[in-house]
Amino acid sequence: MDNAALQQYIEQQQTRYIEELKEFLRISSISTSPQHANDVYQCAEWLAHAAKAVGLENVQIFPTEGHPVVYGDYIHAGDNAPTVLFYGHYDVQPTDPLNLWTNPPFEPTVRDGKIYARGAVDDKGQVFMQLKALEIHTKVIRELPVNVKVLIEGEEEIGSVHLEKFLREKLHMLAADTVLISDTAMFADEVPSICYGLRGLCYMEIEVTGPNRDLHSGVFGGAVANPANALAKILAALTDSYGRITIPGFYDDVIPLTDEEREQYRSLPHNEEEYCRELEIPATDGEFGYSTLEKTSARPSLDVNGLWGGYTGEGAKTVLPSKAYAKVSMRLVPNQNPQDIAHKFEKYVVQIAPPTVRVRVRALHGGRPVITPTRSKGIQAAMRAMEQAFGKKPFLTREGGSIPIVLLFQDILNAPVVLMGVGLNTENPHSPDEHFTLKNLYRGILASALFYKELASIWHSDKY
Amino acid sequence: MDNAALQQYIEQQQTRYIEELKEFLRISSISTSPQHANDVYQCAEWLAHAAKAVGLENVQIFPTEGHPVVYGDYIHAGDNAPTVLFYGHYDVQPTDPLNLWTNPPFEPTVRDGKIYARGAVDDKGQVFMQLKALEIHTKVIRELPVNVKVLIEGEEEIGSVHLEKFLREKLHMLAADTVLISDTAMFADEVPSICYGLRGLCYMEIEVTGPNRDLHSGVFGGAVANPANALAKILAALTDSYGRITIPGFYDDVIPLTDEEREQYRSLPHNEEEYCRELEIPATDGEFGYSTLEKTSARPSLDVNGLWGGYTGEGAKTVLPSKAYAKVSMRLVPNQNPQDIAHKFEKYVVQIAPPTVRVRVRALHGGRPVITPTRSKGIQAAMRAMEQAFGKKPFLTREGGSIPIVLLFQDILNAPVVLMGVGLNTENPHSPDEHFTLKNLYRGILASALFYKELASIWHSDKY
Repeated sequence: MDNAALQQYIEQQQTRYIEELKEFLRISSISTSPQHANDVYQCAEWLAHAAKAVGLENVQIFPTEGHPVVYGDYIHAGDNAPTVLFYGHYDVQPTDPLNLWTNPPFEPTVRDGKIYARGAVDDKGQVFMQLKALEIHTKVIRELPVNVKVLIEGEEEIGSVHLEKFLREKLHMLAADTVLISDTAMFADEVPSICYGLRGLCYMEIEVTGPNRDLHSGVFGGAVANPANALAKILAALTDSYGRITIPGFYDDVIPLTDEEREQYRSLPHNEEEYCRELEIPATDGEFGYSTLEKTSARPSLDVNGLWGGYTGEGAKTVLPSKAYAKVSMRLVPNQNPQDIAHKFEKYVVQIAPPTVRVRVRALHGGRPVITPTRSKGIQAAMRAMEQAFGKKPFLTREGGSIPIVLLFQDILNAPVVLMGVGLNTENPHSPDEHFTLKNLYRGILASALFYKELASIWHSDKY
Repeated sequence: MDNAALQQYIEQQQTRYIEELKEFLRISSISTSPQHANDVYQCAEWLAHAAKAVGLENVQIFPTEGHPVVYGDYIHAGDNAPTVLFYGHYDVQPTDPLNLWTNPPFEPTVRDGKIYARGAVDDKGQVFMQLKALEIHTKVIRELPVNVKVLIEGEEEIGSVHLEKFLREKLHMLAADTVLISDTAMFADEVPSICYGLRGLCYMEIEVTGPNRDLHSGVFGGAVANPANALAKILAALTDSYGRITIPGFYDDVIPLTDEEREQYRSLPHNEEEYCRELEIPATDGEFGYSTLEKTSARPSLDVNGLWGGYTGEGAKTVLPSKAYAKVSMRLVPNQNPQDIAHKFEKYVVQIAPPTVRVRVRALHGGRPVITPTRSKGIQAAMRAMEQAFGKKPFLTREGGSIPIVLLFQDILNAPVVLMGVGLNTENPHSPDEHFTLKNLYRGILASALFYKELASIWHSDKY
């Protein structure tokens, strides 16, 4: 079947697709909520049934210490063909605040070419899209040129707490050449993209202690170091007036952007004026010499995520506080290492802290940055598939946030990850009125179906 | 009667004094608490009765829009004699936390030469001391060589909210040459002192706004100015590495310490090592070139009294906050003006704020610094009286905090204020187990009685 025929077939199935997806979206599989544990399990059962229905074999619901994992595969392409592991999740975020939803979050509704429901785009809609792509191969084309394994977990929204253990225990069952994930967004609507880089994270907490108790600022102010003043000095000294981070050795392992990458960044549609207007900021800020897109995805950053100390109520209380705190996180880029950065951060903060206060630094959380080689066959196949389905060459982009599971797959399965998502950041994932644009669902089904075909066709080519 | 005879008389009255003071202390006159409003009124009635009992005339309870004022006078010294207005307050602080009191706060108890109760030192004990000093003149010596007016209010602990109006309405009735206040502490036990200077206050709030909503620090971090980072830069820039305040023009009106004052400071007993040990600080901090006592009372200071913004709960939330706030207060010294300093502060903060955020500065509260001429006859009389009663020449000291009523009296009555307090900062005013050292009560009665005698004797002298 050629692409036109596939497209026509998908068009004919739209009513069925929507009805099936609605069934999936009706199940309130909120993983964080103990009173929805049974709904989460029912969702796994629905998914196992759906996996069998699209032709997957060896479908199983694997229990974990938390919510179950659904697995299925279709391995008929032979040993020479590549094996793709598709990963997604069937659990969803909570729905608060309920009053901001136009329709109830578990009563899926189609309006203006979009389907509204909790989980519509994150990630049930995109999991459904992959299942329908496989269905096309197993039921319509009747040939799947690669071996496919499907792994859908129920704990992504609560940090994939039991996934690592599961991956390690089922290493053989899950072994793959490429991991495919559809849980990210495109650069913008009508701007298809493949994400090849994610920033890491190093999240620290600083506690500054002055006197052993809150003091009267009239009686002691002027002679006793104020931990809030000291904290401000410490935080201010973490960056310079060029927006660079001043921690010694901080940039040691940063891989500079290549000319090619910077060229790619420049070609991305970005309207600085609109960006500022939408955020209501006078101008952007940050590291001198880099563009907004570079600064938010390919360069490290340092943000005070929270700070507190002393009197924070109404009016004026003249306290010289005993303690002041800040949470500070740094977004990291390849090849920075969170442990190394945490160590350098702590050393520097202790060094610059005034000797008249005591300071304690704690590392709260960390995650490594990741970059996927853009010349990998997986990414090249995804690029070709997206180009055909969306009618445009997709951009290669990097994202500013972290997706810890990407590293998990690369580390444990030793397989490169392809992030082929077709959601949009404007579709309110994690917020009221979450939705998924149906044209992107249909194009995504086509792109996913083509991905397997393209991967098979270039797998033995020397070109990549 | 000579001093020895007075001392002996006071000694003989100790049992009676304690019984009478206990009556006063048993009344739970907590001015901030509506359910104690009746107790406050009963306390005013008790006080009016006690004022009459010590021989005061024209005793009246004046209602205000809040708690009443008790007034009485004894004007028999003639037009050539000076008139002293004694001011004190009969209301007390709340008693929380109750479980930290050894005995209930309104069941006065004597232990180890101290009387324990809420209000024992602040200010019922010191008001009682003044009444007993007057009693000595009216009932024992049978002569009061100065004219005395007594004004005891019931709202000091809630900011003397209706006192200004009362002073303005009763200007003629309250007219005086000197105002005497016993509501402060001595420098230390066995170190009598008269306070002649108080710092002023300029209390500001800064609000820094970045983006119009909290953002994901992964997605936006690096390009969007973080208001918490910006706030830290602003706060850090308010002082330099020599502990000086960097606001342009901040020191313009500061009167430098005289050599004589610095000599006086040096002679005060201060143990820096003990000071640091008690506060558990590695060392003191602050303006280069000044001693701890100078820095906390005769030099201005700048303290962050509170700061907040972003995520302040447990763990790691990667938010780039929309707003961050700080409360900053400056202690002022003569002749700094709070309005002028507020204006300079705002101008400077707006100027140093990064152009990528918006900043709003508000003045919350202000009070002028005050200095009483130490060569005034009132202070000289108090010095002589204290020296005789405590057996040591008192120190002339300045205090770091503010007492707004001092300015009120100086401004409205145009009379210099004498701060002759015999409390101790270690006697837990405002805290559980408040107490008053009885030997200081007795010496204080003597000192107060002698004050009137000394003032009369030097009033027409040219020496002062």
